[in-house]
Amino acid sequence: MSPLLKEIRHNPMLWLLAFVPVVFVAAKLKPEAHTVLFVLSVLAIVPLAALLSHATESVAAKTGDAAGGLLNATLGNLTELVIALAALRAGQYVLVKASIAGAIVTNTLFVLGMSFLLGGLKHHVQEYNRVSARMQAGLLFLATVALMIPSAAGTAGAPEAAAFTQKLSVGLAVLLIVAYGLGMLFSLKTHRELFASAEHADEGEAPWPLGLALGTLVGVTVLVALVSEIFVESVQKAAEAFGMTPAFIGFIVVALVGGAAEMASAFSGARKNRLDLSVGIALGSASQIALFVAPVLVLLSYVIGPTPMDLYIWPGAVVMVLISTLTAALVTNNGRSAWFVGVLVLMVYLIFAMTLYLLPPRG
Amino acid sequence: MSPLLKEIRHNPMLWLLAFVPVVFVAAKLKPEAHTVLFVLSVLAIVPLAALLSHATESVAAKTGDAAGGLLNATLGNLTELVIALAALRAGQYVLVKASIAGAIVTNTLFVLGMSFLLGGLKHHVQEYNRVSARMQAGLLFLATVALMIPSAAGTAGAPEAAAFTQKLSVGLAVLLIVAYGLGMLFSLKTHRELFASAEHADEGEAPWPLGLALGTLVGVTVLVALVSEIFVESVQKAAEAFGMTPAFIGFIVVALVGGAAEMASAFSGARKNRLDLSVGIALGSASQIALFVAPVLVLLSYVIGPTPMDLYIWPGAVVMVLISTLTAALVTNNGRSAWFVGVLVLMVYLIFAMTLYLLPPRG
Amino acid sequence: MSPLLKEIRHNPMLWLLAFVPVVFVAAKLKPEAHTVLFVLSVLAIVPLAALLSHATESVAAKTGDAAGGLLNATLGNLTELVIALAALRAGQYVLVKASIAGAIVTNTLFVLGMSFLLGGLKHHVQEYNRVSARMQAGLLFLATVALMIPSAAGTAGAPEAAAFTQKLSVGLAVLLIVAYGLGMLFSLKTHRELFASAEHADEGEAPWPLGLALGTLVGVTVLVALVSEIFVESVQKAAEAFGMTPAFIGFIVVALVGGAAEMASAFSGARKNRLDLSVGIALGSASQIALFVAPVLVLLSYVIGPTPMDLYIWPGAVVMVLISTLTAALVTNNGRSAWFVGVLVLMVYLIFAMTLYLLPPRG
Repeated sequence: MSPLLKEIRHNPMLWLLAFVPVVFVAAKLKPEAHTVLFVLSVLAIVPLAALLSHATESVAAKTGDAAGGLLNATLGNLTELVIALAALRAGQYVLVKASIAGAIVTNTLFVLGMSFLLGGLKHHVQEYNRVSARMQAGLLFLATVALMIPSAAGTAGAPEAAAFTQKLSVGLAVLLIVAYGLGMLFSLKTHRELFASAEHADEGEAPWPLGLALGTLVGVTVLVALVSEIFVESVQKAAEAFGMTPAFIGFIVVALVGGAAEMASAFSGARKNRLDLSVGIALGSASQIALFVAPVLVLLSYVIGPTPMDLYIWPGAVVMVLISTLTAALVTNNGRSAWFVGVLVLMVYLIFAMTLYLLPPRG
Repeated sequence: MSPLLKEIRHNPMLWLLAFVPVVFVAAKLKPEAHTVLFVLSVLAIVPLAALLSHATESVAAKTGDAAGGLLNATLGNLTELVIALAALRAGQYVLVKASIAGAIVTNTLFVLGMSFLLGGLKHHVQEYNRVSARMQAGLLFLATVALMIPSAAGTAGAPEAAAFTQKLSVGLAVLLIVAYGLGMLFSLKTHRELFASAEHADEGEAPWPLGLALGTLVGVTVLVALVSEIFVESVQKAAEAFGMTPAFIGFIVVALVGGAAEMASAFSGARKNRLDLSVGIALGSASQIALFVAPVLVLLSYVIGPTPMDLYIWPGAVVMVLISTLTAALVTNNGRSAWFVGVLVLMVYLIFAMTLYLLPPRG
Repeated sequence: MSPLLKEIRHNPMLWLLAFVPVVFVAAKLKPEAHTVLFVLSVLAIVPLAALLSHATESVAAKTGDAAGGLLNATLGNLTELVIALAALRAGQYVLVKASIAGAIVTNTLFVLGMSFLLGGLKHHVQEYNRVSARMQAGLLFLATVALMIPSAAGTAGAPEAAAFTQKLSVGLAVLLIVAYGLGMLFSLKTHRELFASAEHADEGEAPWPLGLALGTLVGVTVLVALVSEIFVESVQKAAEAFGMTPAFIGFIVVALVGGAAEMASAFSGARKNRLDLSVGIALGSASQIALFVAPVLVLLSYVIGPTPMDLYIWPGAVVMVLISTLTAALVTNNGRSAWFVGVLVLMVYLIFAMTLYLLPPRG
């Protein structure tokens, strides 16, 4: 257990692990203190997500390139997946969809923009692998088209329309997972030399032994799942107490909580002039959530949800996802960056966050 | 007649010519067997379109560069034009518009994507003339804007709005034809050196003698026109029999039937690593249909249609055309391709085809 | 006063200054002759705008690079600002918003397209600084997102929605001004070397002495303000008399009148193969109006308007601004131009102008 303890001692974010037992005790003693439980569960999820991310990378480093890439590509957003599964089981489909759309927007705008800004404040002009960025932007564009279609086509409230949206969503989910799988085949196997400079991304930290990594992976996933249930139960009531709209909570807060660990890696990569790493985390997470996590949730809803979930998303959220994808595509077009590019991207994020914050509850 | 017979013997697609007499006999004997007539007319149009395409290219090769380019640019989609004219005369404006939008989408997504995929499976990375691709994408973008405007502006059902849409459509048709003409002036005359590598596109097959080519052009056009009438009469009823929506038939089936011959050339070009040819066919056909065939149909509707036809297109179709154009613009931006680019483009096409297939009839 | 008189003698546009006293006399004698007053005020504003533009540049040339750039960036569209202020004081918010959207569209499409066309007719292929064009396109994209949001979110007519739109508009205005300021910091200070070739833009004309320039700046601004009031009062009635829709007047006529002087510079720059100057004027003016003039008007409406003005813009206008921005982004992507690029951009403008001209008054 020594590398794990060493890691905890060196990484202040992991000191928040103390909140994990606290949140369980609090949930037992005061199940109706929603605001307190919400804050405690947020504080507990952040360090667990960091551990999960480190464990996944360690297993990936041990299993070799292709299998490791596959593992990272499927488990890289395990925290988001587990939180969404808790909400799915509770039948909170609005929260699930808001957090999916929010995670895409947050990664493509906030993580990308902040990386450009933080990196640009230290380095005059930064370059990165545009082939990789363009491919992620292409995958995101495909997912955006898939998310637009049910909103554009299934407007009528008739039962016929609902059945159509449901069938369509399953078909779209399968197409997206196939596209994601072929994308991995392309970037990890047939054309991996084009994605070269992103390779040394994992150098940063010494990987854990395989046993510890696997144990952490399983144990922490269980903990995240338990804390997520408290989080999902408390989030609605807490939002009201804070005067926040549910849209703001789902879109902004959940996405920031679930992705905190990866953001830390992306920002530190940008400061070290390794923008390939930052862009890879930002756009890679976004496309993974859009093409893997979201479709898996649609398919899993047939097994674990109270009713099947479709891919229909509130049109305003579709517009935000579309604008985010276009912004990422325009901005990563030439593989160069300076601080003002980060400002532009962050400004788009601020516009969205402000709109969602001001939105009247039943607007 | 020997080169024509030789061509028929060597090209298995032309053996389908046997269906041309069959469809005429069947239409006489069983005019109410819509499903059979639909299938027979499809099987008859495909080889006629191939002959038409070869005859046009042969005439173009004989008449020299500028005149030949002009001929190819105006008669290159003669099959689509003749089918649409048959539907226009029958007053089936919904079918006309669906097949126009469908031909744009099919060429920019299916033909382009399949060319990238087939070429990419054989060649690791392929390059092509991006100046030419960018110009076609620009023309397509202009046409998309023109198609959006009547849908965006003329929503009201008032008679005033109808008159407005009608006047606007004539104006837009004239603007598009002028833009298309100026585009030919640019690419064939003033800046032809920029489009150089597309030049050796016609090398492939030995051209026919001029007399044979002209005779084939006239004779086959008449045959296509006659078969098209049977096709247009039977398509609606056949669609119901197959359980397909009219939108799916117009968008997907008609477009694939009308463009089968060109698709064969585009795919074989991609396999031979002559992606300039494939991209030229895909985007060139799309922009020709959008900027020449569609406006000509609007203007001709004043002469041969029962009532004038406008450019108003069902908003869902406008969204599909817009997404197709954006996809083509993003994908052809850097003049390089690999197999996964083809997958991405084809996936967008599959999403559209699946949506149209599942769409409830009155959705 | 000699340089001013010399300028007037050499520049035929300035002979129109004779209309300045004429319009004041006419407004006193025949205040109800709206059509005549409209025409006279247009003829008087054009030369005043030219003087204002020259005076601003002269002051900028004297005050050194950073301060001069700042001055140009804030006063470069002083005419548009003064006209809009007159309309704001009169409570004509529809006209204000139409002229803002129209100025963005006119600059990005008409001025840019005409520069490409006029330059391209003289020079085979022209190159320009794409870094500068991309940055302006990025700023425009941000402003377009900001203008879309109130239209997309605030559809309901409830008083709650109005309060939301109002608060959102103030927030958006502040964000846009901050982004504009940071953009100036980036292009004038931290990364000015990237924008180098736009530097020798001011060489063209000999600057006036500082006293004359400052005096002209103040005096002419007052004259523009007085003429603008006559213009704003007469425009609505005159539009009816000419059979033009208010949308056409606000979008097309006001934008062309306010920007006439800058257009002359942009077009002459393009003919002299200094396309950096032309692209800078076209996209620079558009982004200045979108990120500086429009937000300042929203904030000033709290001080001088009868009621606060929001940023909600008629959805059709938002679509036009969005298409204009996308067109500019696609077209300036590679820093090269030929005459046909100009044709494409102008065609998009013609489509918009024709639509607005044909639009039924209450459509």
